Amino acid sequence: MSIANRAPSDVAIGWIGTGVMGAAMCGHLMDAGHPATVHTRTRAKAEGLLARGAAWADRPRDVAEASDVIFTIVGYPADVREVILGTDGVLAGCGGGEIIVDMTTSEPALAVEIAAAAAARGVAAVDAPVSGGDVGARGGTLSIMIGGDAETVASLAPFWEAMGRTWVHQGGPGAGQHTKMVNQTLIAAGMVSVCEGLLYAWRAGLDLETVMESVASGAAGSWSLSNLGARMIAGDFDPGFFVEHFVKDMGIALAEADRMGLDLPGLRLARGFYDRLVAADRGRLGTQSLICALAELSNLDWTTR
Amino acid sequence: MSIANRAPSDVAIGWIGTGVMGAAMCGHLMDAGHPATVHTRTRAKAEGLLARGAAWADRPRDVAEASDVIFTIVGYPADVREVILGTDGVLAGCGGGEIIVDMTTSEPALAVEIAAAAAARGVAAVDAPVSGGDVGARGGTLSIMIGGDAETVASLAPFWEAMGRTWVHQGGPGAGQHTKMVNQTLIAAGMVSVCEGLLYAWRAGLDLETVMESVASGAAGSWSLSNLGARMIAGDFDPGFFVEHFVKDMGIALAEADRMGLDLPGLRLARGFYDRLVAADRGRLGTQSLICALAELSNLDWTTR
Repeated sequence: MSIANRAPSDVAIGWIGTGVMGAAMCGHLMDAGHPATVHTRTRAKAEGLLARGAAWADRPRDVAEASDVIFTIVGYPADVREVILGTDGVLAGCGGGEIIVDMTTSEPALAVEIAAAAAARGVAAVDAPVSGGDVGARGGTLSIMIGGDAETVASLAPFWEAMGRTWVHQGGPGAGQHTKMVNQTLIAAGMVSVCEGLLYAWRAGLDLETVMESVASGAAGSWSLSNLGARMIAGDFDPGFFVEHFVKDMGIALAEADRMGLDLPGLRLARGFYDRLVAADRGRLGTQSLICALAELSNLDWTTR
Repeated sequence: MSIANRAPSDVAIGWIGTGVMGAAMCGHLMDAGHPATVHTRTRAKAEGLLARGAAWADRPRDVAEASDVIFTIVGYPADVREVILGTDGVLAGCGGGEIIVDMTTSEPALAVEIAAAAAARGVAAVDAPVSGGDVGARGGTLSIMIGGDAETVASLAPFWEAMGRTWVHQGGPGAGQHTKMVNQTLIAAGMVSVCEGLLYAWRAGLDLETVMESVASGAAGSWSLSNLGARMIAGDFDPGFFVEHFVKDMGIALAEADRMGLDLPGLRLARGFYDRLVAADRGRLGTQSLICALAELSNLDWTTR
């Protein structure tokens, strides 16, 4: 049965993956009136939602059996594959007519595979990765990039509205993931430029905050400069977005680019420096710690400047 | 005599370099009531200002002899050296008490040299390169990055206000140029990222304008993406800022970085692709034509997509 024209209390949602972002996003849908069944690898991370009335299920397939629309936001493509296509996965619990919405940043080809496997069972599947981080998840201000059948995507409008400020249907299955890869590609070499600009300013003896007054709002301006550049200057390397997650995303983008015959040297350059951070056990720092790796290239220590 | 507390009509300005930007900027100062004497390599480019009442001088030194504050905005550091320090240059025409303001994007070390040579003759010199292009010059909305003696810089406030929306004193002589190099360094690898994001989107079969709706205003957003990315999508390679001028700026920044023992691989990467454009006789295109060079790396033609 279509979810269109049904009251929220009449559309049961499932949510798999209740980390910082998933828990906040699921919470918005519960706030909108949907009954929810949840599952996540570490049950403690679901306690907040359970306390607010969500039901617990031991397996993704059990989540699906209780739900009309099942959302997933987990870690890596392998996790997506397991929770959706695995023996105990979402699809195994679908009887037909459900909608699966994967919001993990994952592989475009996997999104296509999931959509095909779902269609074979009379189930719709949509890929809908997001940008905006934990702040956007909590505030309901995410940018949601969506791939899938147009009618299905449109039928989910109330959900997109509850979680995001911007939601755009980008094309068929995989198009949401491809758009997220564009987003990450834009960020990658852009972050290198932010680091290099600040390193230059430091070594030239300029006052970094005064420099920002000149450059942050003009042709050199970017979200990364205003937000993560400011954190670099403050020496704040706490994660808004983990280095290791960004490395995952860049790996997907580079593999896709390779498949498309596309050489992206700026993305490769950024990935190389982020790999160094992971190798130095700094994968759980925020992506702004890139400046430390770039400083080290010149035998400098950004943290003790 | 200090220019402080004198009426604009009582403070004569000189202007050397009346290209698109210089002519607009000089025009704002004439609008503010300053009598002006101008000189530029190609006299035809000064006709607009002459028609509005500016006096013509055949040599920079003659400009200086008629002026209290002499502005220069020319092409390359060698031009700056000639018009200010040359035999017929500005400094040769100064009797003492003048202020020289070089607004060319030029070498920090040359700015220091000029300030010292000027001081030896009782003349103040300030480096004040700008960001904002011809649009900013015409609208009086430039960002002006200023190096020099604090008191001198402050005394010029009415001039900065007439030409810019943002003006910031960044430090002693050369600090304005260094800040401009930070600005250009921020733009360089950032432009690579914009090109790579759009190339990925194209090859992934996405609609570029729809992708922009998802990515332009979030964490991947930048001035370059919103403005030059949009021109790339439109196939508009007309110059807002010439490739060959950006190559000049990146060359200065890389030389300075080298002098400071700083390796900036993102800037080097960008410079390499811009060099290819110059070698292919595309130096008079806008900087957004970088995407053509990056497409060619993968044997693709952006212009016929």
